Amino acid sequence: MYIPTYQDMLEAHERIMPHIQRTPVRTSDFLNEITGADLFFKCENFQTPGAFKVRGASNAVFGLDDEQAKLGVATHSSGNHASCLSYAASRRGIPCNVVMPRTAPQAKKDTVARYGGVVTECDPSTTSREETFAKVQAATGGDFVHPYNDPRVIAGQGTCAREFIEQTDGLDIVMAPIGGGGMISGTCLTLSNQAPEVQIIAAEPEQADDAYRSFKAGYIIADDAPKTIADGLLVPLKNLTWHFVSKHVTDILTASEDEIIAAMKLTWKHLRIVMEASSAVPLATILKNKDRFAGKRVGIIITGGNVDLDVLPWLK
Amino acid sequence: MYIPTYQDMLEAHERIMPHIQRTPVRTSDFLNEITGADLFFKCENFQTPGAFKVRGASNAVFGLDDEQAKLGVATHSSGNHASCLSYAASRRGIPCNVVMPRTAPQAKKDTVARYGGVVTECDPSTTSREETFAKVQAATGGDFVHPYNDPRVIAGQGTCAREFIEQTDGLDIVMAPIGGGGMISGTCLTLSNQAPEVQIIAAEPEQADDAYRSFKAGYIIADDAPKTIADGLLVPLKNLTWHFVSKHVTDILTASEDEIIAAMKLTWKHLRIVMEASSAVPLATILKNKDRFAGKRVGIIITGGNVDLDVLPWLK
Repeated sequence: MYIPTYQDMLEAHERIMPHIQRTPVRTSDFLNEITGADLFFKCENFQTPGAFKVRGASNAVFGLDDEQAKLGVATHSSGNHASCLSYAASRRGIPCNVVMPRTAPQAKKDTVARYGGVVTECDPSTTSREETFAKVQAATGGDFVHPYNDPRVIAGQGTCAREFIEQTDGLDIVMAPIGGGGMISGTCLTLSNQAPEVQIIAAEPEQADDAYRSFKAGYIIADDAPKTIADGLLVPLKNLTWHFVSKHVTDILTASEDEIIAAMKLTWKHLRIVMEASSAVPLATILKNKDRFAGKRVGIIITGGNVDLDVLPWLK
Repeated sequence: MYIPTYQDMLEAHERIMPHIQRTPVRTSDFLNEITGADLFFKCENFQTPGAFKVRGASNAVFGLDDEQAKLGVATHSSGNHASCLSYAASRRGIPCNVVMPRTAPQAKKDTVARYGGVVTECDPSTTSREETFAKVQAATGGDFVHPYNDPRVIAGQGTCAREFIEQTDGLDIVMAPIGGGGMISGTCLTLSNQAPEVQIIAAEPEQADDAYRSFKAGYIIADDAPKTIADGLLVPLKNLTWHFVSKHVTDILTASEDEIIAAMKLTWKHLRIVMEASSAVPLATILKNKDRFAGKRVGIIITGGNVDLDVLPWLK
């Protein structure tokens, strides 16, 4: 297991800079007022393909040597990693193959296709996904880019925290939602070197709290069929992300579905941005733990903005 | 009738700079692809009180001499002007009185109150509004700041186009929705001096097309009880805004309710911003007049982002 270094993150930033947005940081008087904290929101939902995952994906794609690049990349994902990897591959002009369950929303498949990615459908089971992916990879020779348990991906995600600290002139706490732990690991990688005084707090849905339980237990525990509105956060930690989480995360806080939905709506209303439910989990945990954050400068990474506007959770 | 000058706009910008945001400009590959144009969106929905009207309101408030400032400002509005004027007055620490129909949404009244504005309710008729406003003004001595037919307000709105041209390194066309014509007039004031080669195109709902009909007729025509989802655009032109519209606007284009709603949803999805239906009218007119805009660099002013998230028009 290769653990990415601070130097890897710096090189990643140099490599991906032409292909990503230095996303803006937004604030809201109203959200500061109701939390008693100084909140800064880094809008990764404003990346061109709509999520921070374009950072790690671009680092993997543009780090390939020319020979491997000809064969392209491959992954399995039904979420933002699939569209971000396709986007990065299209910028380099190389093939991207994605295995997706046939039950994934058509909109997700369409986005991958729009960026020139090739979707191969599998049944919605781990066995089928692994079998299908093995076939696709054997046929194409594409380099496997895991959605988060990949040192290139983690180094890429770490570039977000680097920008965030520069843009805010320092923070007391940085927060992000945690699913597989790619963004949190990248944040740990960067801040443990660049600004080790900054606390890193992960936020997780109560209904998919495997990272929280792993953190408390001291070893990886996986959820049994988690179900949450924050559908970017269903996947479990893996060895590489566990390394960073167990070593550098200060705490993991959780929030209920109703709390997440309320925080999502508040952010849409007061920051006037469209973002995913997953991105609302940090604010939801701040609102229920105000004492802990009062008076602090808190940076929150808004992880993505690919939302089905026909199904808004507060209108159900 | 005092016509504000380019110098007034420059002084306004200097005066209000500490009180407004230099709002970001966003772009979308996808929206460029489907229109064939290069679109730039100036996000005035990211102003702290959520609308460009904070520019004109701040210019009026911070331009008052100390004696008048003690008595504060007053207006009648049930929209963004009311909250933006209250916001500006609160920053200067002076009174703000607002007359609103008792039928206005509670959320609008609450926003004014949150910024320290005092709401006096009237019946939803012009007679009642004028009577009530006269009483409030007599009792308070507040300086009347009209939502758009005021040279200070137009000079303030003109600061937006100044930033827009700087941020984009030049545009072929600038577009904004037109209601009373405050933003369009400010845009005319600035661009006719700073960049007279830029076309100014206003966009209006078909169902409230008084500016379009006035423009074609050559004199002000008011609508008879207009009704549109773009509720920021119901008010008629007045003498001062007519001056600018008749003199400097290249054209006025209109869009149907369905076209406005479709453009609104497209913008939320692809720019990932929350904005009002009124702000979608320009894109709606571009989508139905693609030949006219193909290959052009088009700047669109996103006028506001105060939306009732419980009532989204595409979900009705």
